[in-house]
Amino acid sequence: MLHAVIPAGGSGTRLWPLSRAGNPKFLHPLTGTAQTLLQATVARLSDVSPPADTLVVTGVAHAAAVARQLPELPEANIIIEPSPRDSCAAIGLAAAIIARRDPRAVMGSFAADHLVRDQARLTEVLKQAVAGAERGLLMTVGITPTHAETGYGYLECGDTIDGPVRRVARFKEKPSLEVATEYLNSGRYLWNASMFVWRVDVFLSELKRQQPSLHDGLQAIAAAWGTDEQERVLGEIWPTLTKISVDYAVMEGAAEAGLVATVPGDFGWTDVGDFHTLGDVLPTDAAGNVLTGDGAADVLLEDVTNTIVIGQSGRLVAALGVRDIVIVDTPDALLVCDRSRAQDVKKLVDELKARGDSRL
Amino acid sequence: MLHAVIPAGGSGTRLWPLSRAGNPKFLHPLTGTAQTLLQATVARLSDVSPPADTLVVTGVAHAAAVARQLPELPEANIIIEPSPRDSCAAIGLAAAIIARRDPRAVMGSFAADHLVRDQARLTEVLKQAVAGAERGLLMTVGITPTHAETGYGYLECGDTIDGPVRRVARFKEKPSLEVATEYLNSGRYLWNASMFVWRVDVFLSELKRQQPSLHDGLQAIAAAWGTDEQERVLGEIWPTLTKISVDYAVMEGAAEAGLVATVPGDFGWTDVGDFHTLGDVLPTDAAGNVLTGDGAADVLLEDVTNTIVIGQSGRLVAALGVRDIVIVDTPDALLVCDRSRAQDVKKLVDELKARGDSRL
Repeated sequence: MLHAVIPAGGSGTRLWPLSRAGNPKFLHPLTGTAQTLLQATVARLSDVSPPADTLVVTGVAHAAAVARQLPELPEANIIIEPSPRDSCAAIGLAAAIIARRDPRAVMGSFAADHLVRDQARLTEVLKQAVAGAERGLLMTVGITPTHAETGYGYLECGDTIDGPVRRVARFKEKPSLEVATEYLNSGRYLWNASMFVWRVDVFLSELKRQQPSLHDGLQAIAAAWGTDEQERVLGEIWPTLTKISVDYAVMEGAAEAGLVATVPGDFGWTDVGDFHTLGDVLPTDAAGNVLTGDGAADVLLEDVTNTIVIGQSGRLVAALGVRDIVIVDTPDALLVCDRSRAQDVKKLVDELKARGDSRL
Repeated sequence: MLHAVIPAGGSGTRLWPLSRAGNPKFLHPLTGTAQTLLQATVARLSDVSPPADTLVVTGVAHAAAVARQLPELPEANIIIEPSPRDSCAAIGLAAAIIARRDPRAVMGSFAADHLVRDQARLTEVLKQAVAGAERGLLMTVGITPTHAETGYGYLECGDTIDGPVRRVARFKEKPSLEVATEYLNSGRYLWNASMFVWRVDVFLSELKRQQPSLHDGLQAIAAAWGTDEQERVLGEIWPTLTKISVDYAVMEGAAEAGLVATVPGDFGWTDVGDFHTLGDVLPTDAAGNVLTGDGAADVLLEDVTNTIVIGQSGRLVAALGVRDIVIVDTPDALLVCDRSRAQDVKKLVDELKARGDSRL
């Protein structure tokens, strides 16, 4: 039905010390299951994209782990970026490579570290998106908002095109709480989860229109892909590519041109961006506590409520009389954090970076 | 001036996981200094009792550590109990051994795990106590109460004998909060810190009167002390000795007989019984946080107040947005505890014991 492209980059700093620069969150079984987030993403999309049609774009640091976690993917489908050049280069290269295999193929781009509760509903929504893509629209799957979230960008919906498909009038930056509340109440806004579905020819033509040099560079790399020239061409051209997100580079301009549409996604989406969110999607005990990690059995709680304990050090974790706390215990670093401050874990990582500490 | 006797036993379960059954609190440098509590106790008493006159009574489990921590003490001054038989046997054996060296010596008994802020004042108070002891009184040093504490026993003071020396009318059990408040307001009660000063002959004669078989057993052991018979006699008699505290065995009865007196001790005493208390006696940063332990430098705090971090694992400890918390990080166990619940850490240790967990 489509070619799934999964950009697997980013370290998930708000999930430190569980997620590390060297061991990012998509490589972890964060949800207490055997599958890592990346494996769960591939499995979830297997109804619409078999492994032969699924591509992962990742960096040199994580390519080996990705290759081992996804043995069902052909080696040629693991695209390794020589250096990070933002999402337009990553997704654009995948589009150009797919286009050489099948010029009118539909591709979808999906983050490696999101969760979806209702997989059947996801498949239905993706079918609607594919239908829109086949008629030449750059489709996004917007997430039906459940609260006035200030941590995401939004899609402002315009007129209805057909069935659930609505035009995207414009992309909106992360709003203030006041503005987010307006968005929520209006019913005309969806969360932008950077979940895109399009025909590769349509996308590449918009890329050529808006970012011609980036387009040409990616096409040159794609032409050499799988040949003896691949490494040389990639090594020469990749560092010269414009570093820009696909939202800025293509989608905003395409929306102005009336080429972008959306279908609302109400399939229980979560981005597992921080420990508070993670705690919300995991099963709790009677006191609202979440216990997970390698050492989940090795926890002793007394009068503890609404607390998340992630034990990865094999040590005994004891807690007494605390509530709304996150405890993350890893072999070389410990985090104790109030749940309301889970977003600010990033600040700690920034501080570690400033100190030159290697444990980030 | 006196022979200091330091019973060094008890595991300090409310300081778990820092203090362990196998590594009790008096062997730790709890206060962030180089000295352990035991070493600090010996050093603090050196003005009134040189090492040659200082005895430590400890169990087989900790004797080696005690011997190494106190290289200045003669080996004969480290009395090793074959098994725990409560404080009367421990203190009584020390008294009997001292009596054989100097029959009218004054001895003082001091816990191994208390803190004193004003050492000069302690010395003055001990001089007053020694004066009382020399005239044949069983002296206690009572602690001037600073609040209505329910965790200690109390001394009810009677008439003034001479200067600061007052008779002890009776020993009182740990009171309810209401009763403790009455005690505090009356000004007639002192905390019983089991700090005793007496002539060994006076004590042994009261012991003989109230606990004749215990007295005779201890005298028999003392007679063999330092001879070839020491181990055989100790091994035979020690297990038969009555297991009783010196308060119950001797002091309460002696108080009824009008033989007990006290001097008030206002030298900044703390018993470091739990992490909350420990935090109160240690220096804080501007936000009221206490950082101590081996890894004190390896702590990263963001919006954290009134929190105690004890790092002993060498790991990075990061905390964010928490207040009034205790974090104790050791190589095999982690504790996260609200400061108000510091007394209940004992419950966790009881639970570990019930589980058969070795990490207690």
